Amino acid sequence: MVVRGAMAAAESDFLAELGSWLRIPSVSARPEYAMDVRRSAEWLCEALWRAGFPVAELWETGGHPSVFAQWPAADPDAPVILVYGHHDVQPVEAAEWDTPPFDPVRHGDELFGRGAADDKGQVVAHLFAARLANAASGGQAPPVTLKVLVEGEEESASPHLADLLRTHRDRLACDAVIVSDTPMLGPETPSICIGMRGLADCEIDVFGPEGDIHSGSFGGGVPNPAHALAELIAQMHDDKGRVTLPGFYDRVRPLSDDERAELARLPFDEARWLRQSARSTAAIGEAGFSTLERIWVRPAAEVNGLWSGYTGPGSKTIIPRGAHAKISFRLVADQQPDEVISSFREFVADRLPTGVRAEVRGGGPGLRPCLTPADSPVLQAAIRAVGGVFGADVLLTREGGSGPEAELADVLGVPVVFVGFGLPDDRIHAANERVVISRLLKGAEALAELWLDLAERGRG
Amino acid sequence: MVVRGAMAAAESDFLAELGSWLRIPSVSARPEYAMDVRRSAEWLCEALWRAGFPVAELWETGGHPSVFAQWPAADPDAPVILVYGHHDVQPVEAAEWDTPPFDPVRHGDELFGRGAADDKGQVVAHLFAARLANAASGGQAPPVTLKVLVEGEEESASPHLADLLRTHRDRLACDAVIVSDTPMLGPETPSICIGMRGLADCEIDVFGPEGDIHSGSFGGGVPNPAHALAELIAQMHDDKGRVTLPGFYDRVRPLSDDERAELARLPFDEARWLRQSARSTAAIGEAGFSTLERIWVRPAAEVNGLWSGYTGPGSKTIIPRGAHAKISFRLVADQQPDEVISSFREFVADRLPTGVRAEVRGGGPGLRPCLTPADSPVLQAAIRAVGGVFGADVLLTREGGSGPEAELADVLGVPVVFVGFGLPDDRIHAANERVVISRLLKGAEALAELWLDLAERGRG
Repeated sequence: MVVRGAMAAAESDFLAELGSWLRIPSVSARPEYAMDVRRSAEWLCEALWRAGFPVAELWETGGHPSVFAQWPAADPDAPVILVYGHHDVQPVEAAEWDTPPFDPVRHGDELFGRGAADDKGQVVAHLFAARLANAASGGQAPPVTLKVLVEGEEESASPHLADLLRTHRDRLACDAVIVSDTPMLGPETPSICIGMRGLADCEIDVFGPEGDIHSGSFGGGVPNPAHALAELIAQMHDDKGRVTLPGFYDRVRPLSDDERAELARLPFDEARWLRQSARSTAAIGEAGFSTLERIWVRPAAEVNGLWSGYTGPGSKTIIPRGAHAKISFRLVADQQPDEVISSFREFVADRLPTGVRAEVRGGGPGLRPCLTPADSPVLQAAIRAVGGVFGADVLLTREGGSGPEAELADVLGVPVVFVGFGLPDDRIHAANERVVISRLLKGAEALAELWLDLAERGRG
Repeated sequence: MVVRGAMAAAESDFLAELGSWLRIPSVSARPEYAMDVRRSAEWLCEALWRAGFPVAELWETGGHPSVFAQWPAADPDAPVILVYGHHDVQPVEAAEWDTPPFDPVRHGDELFGRGAADDKGQVVAHLFAARLANAASGGQAPPVTLKVLVEGEEESASPHLADLLRTHRDRLACDAVIVSDTPMLGPETPSICIGMRGLADCEIDVFGPEGDIHSGSFGGGVPNPAHALAELIAQMHDDKGRVTLPGFYDRVRPLSDDERAELARLPFDEARWLRQSARSTAAIGEAGFSTLERIWVRPAAEVNGLWSGYTGPGSKTIIPRGAHAKISFRLVADQQPDEVISSFREFVADRLPTGVRAEVRGGGPGLRPCLTPADSPVLQAAIRAVGGVFGADVLLTREGGSGPEAELADVLGVPVVFVGFGLPDDRIHAANERVVISRLLKGAEALAELWLDLAERGRG
């Protein structure tokens, strides 16, 4: 543990940096926050300079800007690592938070604020890891060449990342991509994620009468688009919990007995997970699969939002003119987002009741599912570094969420390795998001150890 | 036609009065309009004085105020008629209107504004009818004793009307209630409604996880309340279009062959009704019944509003903590609102999927269905007066909408007769509500003729 002493001294500095970044409400999904997303990128450039990166610059995209930085190793043959993260955050419903979402508050070992875990905290851990590794290898340069790409549209499904990667393919060239945007199994149970689900999202609009009409004068005589939408949503799953879109499971890789056995060995306390993470009273889903299988290696369809008619106080007795839903699908290898949205269109066309019409609007290119090759040397080094710093065997997990990692792997032609230090109870995307400070600091140590380990062993 | 000449001269006065009332946004469902509902009541008191009523006063309720007025006939034995109407209006979605909803605009024979037809225009017609009948019988007093009760909560299901009727039963004593809050079949097709559907409404809240959770981390593994709500709504009707609430049809009076034949004889152009009134592309509903039967004499269940999760721009990939719907039922004799809401609670309890919980909150006492006795002398007089002024046979219809008329009939122990001058295309409760001015003026004439006719024939 060459870097532990240095890290402890850096804690207050670490919290000051992260705190000031969390104050910038970089919500990529809401146009009114566009300037804040830009300010967040500018803040990050300056923080990268402060950490020691000689190069840090804004990269414009068709949407919110990304940040690129580079800090070359002294040895031109040292491995080149690209760190990927994101500086945008999910929207907030401030009324549901116990503390102001953009005014971070520390309680003991926890720091509360939107983006604390997803993903600003983990990006700041990388800045400190780079500084630590640099100090540990003499203070002139880090042991590996570090490149950093932090995008501003991850929470909006990264619509411009693929173009950006292709445009800057040469400057992004590397031996592996390290992504820190995932949780560990528990505070004392280090783990590394080797696969993420993909994402396809869309909005469906069902239209009935040309305008809202009186539910007394017309009720019972004409189609109600809210009923039609409800029927479509109800039919989206069969009574075995399987998604009924045509061909939905055709490309899903079946789980091997070994894979199922590995997942079954993980220390997963379903009752605790339900209570503390999912905050739900029941685990349900596709028949024949365990909860971990359902959320990690099986695809899913979820309604994220729903609206129709009158939703204010009191009553307004209308048949609404339209009914709308935001629906997203989590995909597993080798499902393709565009195929799933096409299949949803087919499903809607097949099942739409008489007298209403529907439009399905895809939310963008989506995100493909991603798997790390089990034999990747960088994965093996990460397992050693994380296991060493956390003092426990590293377990291999999957992640139910989605990121643009498949795109990184494809365009750059290298493995993507997930080394994340969040926790399952961080409430990312929800109210009262938090991060556990000591886990981030240990994470920074582990990353610094990983850079030193990779430099010693040479290019993987 | 003793009153026609007087009426023509009154048109500009009529439009000035109605226009000034329509400018007051008396939306009873929205608390922020409470002062406007009160202003609307005060405006009406003054208008009643201007029309000649010696007594006009505000009656306080537990909610928005009602207006009561009285104008005694010279003959103490003259019939006593109570006119019932309402001065509150439906909420508006201003963005959907072509003209400002509370700044009335005249185009030819149409006046556009919220409340133009439902019900301010029809109440103003009564003020002019009283003035005309008074002038026609000598200018000292109207031919019948006129009482007026105009409430401020009709669009909110009249939660305080029953109490108000009981409190003021003596002052409201009458021989019949005339209600002008319904449409005629067409501009040249006078009709009188002899029955209205009742109303029961409620809100259902389905709760899943304790807060919104990430649809990647948890999707496919825990219940989604939006799915559960959609399943409940989808199950609310069977594949014959029948409502599946337990016992829902038990109290529904079957239609006699004569009643069905009468309805079938009405000049109902379904294609035109779909295009111009319902503005829908298909007539659907309970198997085995015609469209008029479905909307007039059969009960119905309709979702009026629906909301869950994230409904803003872009995407937010969550499993929402809750999903909500406003649902209302239209009832026919002898269904009871409280029994229907109890039955909906039972339906929800029976069919709620695992892992979510639900609450059903009734919207108030509801409104019972109402039927006018076919042998009522006031109904027969109204048929003569309307037929005479409009120069055509008066057809007998029903109304799919609901009002507190059953309460009026029950508490006061008299028949309720619907004499309305709206049209099917008035878009009440929707954007671009309008009234056809010439029909209101003819309506005022018909009402004045009715008062004169009743006075001649004595108490019915």
